[in-house]
Amino acid sequence: MVVSNSTVAPLYLERLERSLQGRHPRVHSIALPDGEQHKDWATLNAVFDALLGSRCDRDTTVYALGGGVVGDIAGFAAACFMRGVPHIQVPTTLLAQVDSSVGGKTAINHPLGKNLIGAFHQPQVVLCDIDTLVTLPDRELRAGLAEVIKYGPIADWAFFEWIEDRLDDLLARDRQALMHAVRRSCEIKAGVVALDEREGGSRAALNFGHTFGHAIEAGLGFGTWLHGEAVAAGMVMAAALSVRLGMLDRHASERLESLLKRCGLPVQAPAMAPERYLELMRLDKKARGGEIRFTLLVGRGAARLGTASDDLVRGVIAQAVHRSS
Amino acid sequence: MVVSNSTVAPLYLERLERSLQGRHPRVHSIALPDGEQHKDWATLNAVFDALLGSRCDRDTTVYALGGGVVGDIAGFAAACFMRGVPHIQVPTTLLAQVDSSVGGKTAINHPLGKNLIGAFHQPQVVLCDIDTLVTLPDRELRAGLAEVIKYGPIADWAFFEWIEDRLDDLLARDRQALMHAVRRSCEIKAGVVALDEREGGSRAALNFGHTFGHAIEAGLGFGTWLHGEAVAAGMVMAAALSVRLGMLDRHASERLESLLKRCGLPVQAPAMAPERYLELMRLDKKARGGEIRFTLLVGRGAARLGTASDDLVRGVIAQAVHRSS
Repeated sequence: MVVSNSTVAPLYLERLERSLQGRHPRVHSIALPDGEQHKDWATLNAVFDALLGSRCDRDTTVYALGGGVVGDIAGFAAACFMRGVPHIQVPTTLLAQVDSSVGGKTAINHPLGKNLIGAFHQPQVVLCDIDTLVTLPDRELRAGLAEVIKYGPIADWAFFEWIEDRLDDLLARDRQALMHAVRRSCEIKAGVVALDEREGGSRAALNFGHTFGHAIEAGLGFGTWLHGEAVAAGMVMAAALSVRLGMLDRHASERLESLLKRCGLPVQAPAMAPERYLELMRLDKKARGGEIRFTLLVGRGAARLGTASDDLVRGVIAQAVHRSS
Repeated sequence: MVVSNSTVAPLYLERLERSLQGRHPRVHSIALPDGEQHKDWATLNAVFDALLGSRCDRDTTVYALGGGVVGDIAGFAAACFMRGVPHIQVPTTLLAQVDSSVGGKTAINHPLGKNLIGAFHQPQVVLCDIDTLVTLPDRELRAGLAEVIKYGPIADWAFFEWIEDRLDDLLARDRQALMHAVRRSCEIKAGVVALDEREGGSRAALNFGHTFGHAIEAGLGFGTWLHGEAVAAGMVMAAALSVRLGMLDRHASERLESLLKRCGLPVQAPAMAPERYLELMRLDKKARGGEIRFTLLVGRGAARLGTASDDLVRGVIAQAVHRSS
């Protein structure tokens, strides 16, 4: 069963189905409506209906062909259908290739929050075809690069410097540059997840920029900023907090901000009141007993969870809101 | 978060909440509507709403207080809430104590079939309080005993003989007899599940009587016969099939039938056409490529998956339908 969406299916579904025909006795497909607002129970149930209507059973493999929303829904459907069938991710956006398709997180949204209902269900294979990136809108390419850039500061400073060197090639969609960026991103993410699948500790490094970023997304209304854009501004804020806590040198933080700017990503935070930021961040899944936990940089190429006083966080927010981008 | 239902909550919820107050900083509860017809997405979503409305997070433990339906819904909610939180089963029916609460199978129903959407999510603890069985209706006690009896033929013939000896005490709800029956049943089930959590092979032994039994439940309409009643008639049929295949001696099969009769359980199958039985059994989750796979007895105290010709199965059905009970 290939799960795709109304945007991606016309572009790549036929090609994938053809290549699967020798591999499976039957190939079925379903195209979901496109968009984060459809990442809900009704759409998930449409996948179950398709699986049962096509007489799929426990021998079925679910393929996710599309971006992060398709990957999350199809992966969660595979996790729950007859208590779990295998799935294979075929991500067609840069964000999905370097982030959401790897690591086994699947979910749908609940009216009260994103990704609140879901499962850990590892894909058997993540198949990234770089050629699918040629049809990706420019804004989505840049938003995807935010997550690529993220891997440098949290895990591999040499990779960060490679991106500094090759950013123009990446933006020009140079095949070799994209291939290296996607491969190295997947390697880093898979390495982190292998050590901590269920996010008990070190996996939180991957959330660098996401605590502030989620507050931006939720505060502006999801979809106003792309996820990668919110993460870009969030990384600038989390790096600034790390500097204020004495964990990171100011120059590293400036290089990160400068690279994100060159990438055309926002580094200035939206003008919401600091108290609104704090309120939204207290709803973060990493928060415990009302205390916000941030992914902080501890030197170049390393991260860990930590806390900070509300006053320090207010200072970072005020600085980020008034930064000229 | 204690998940219960409208029947069990008035009896035991307050007692459980009191005993949890020293263990958790906050205790919340929700009483679901009672009955298999509510084992659906709407009820599951009510649990998510309660969890989020009470500001529960990843540190929350979900308690299931009730029978199999409550256990399945609460367990599945725990499996999916924020991608998985711990849960503890507190089963209050004999069927749930000896079967559904152990082994980590959780699910809800889909309009096209039972338990089609679910997860494997092991409970941290299964807490069986025998005293809750005093309020259990007699018919449900007998239906629960069908699953207790099942463990003998598939795994421990000495336990089967112990039940033959002590059936009158069990029916009279003798505390010591019930405690031994529940404990031994849980031990056997936990041992089988430990070897094969995901039902790749040996766990199928637990499905003895269930292939025919599910056909009875589905054919008559779920709820007409209790699950344990359908399993009782199903075990008689599966044992008869094992005898016809030369795997089991006829005397063992007769002793099983006789014990089920003494227990007040049906041993005669409902009068549906053999073709209808076959059609329903081909929808069984164990079926592969349209071929029905039965859990068969291979001697006294052992079981394995196997197939049989449709003719042989038709013969068993005809015999079971015309048996005088």
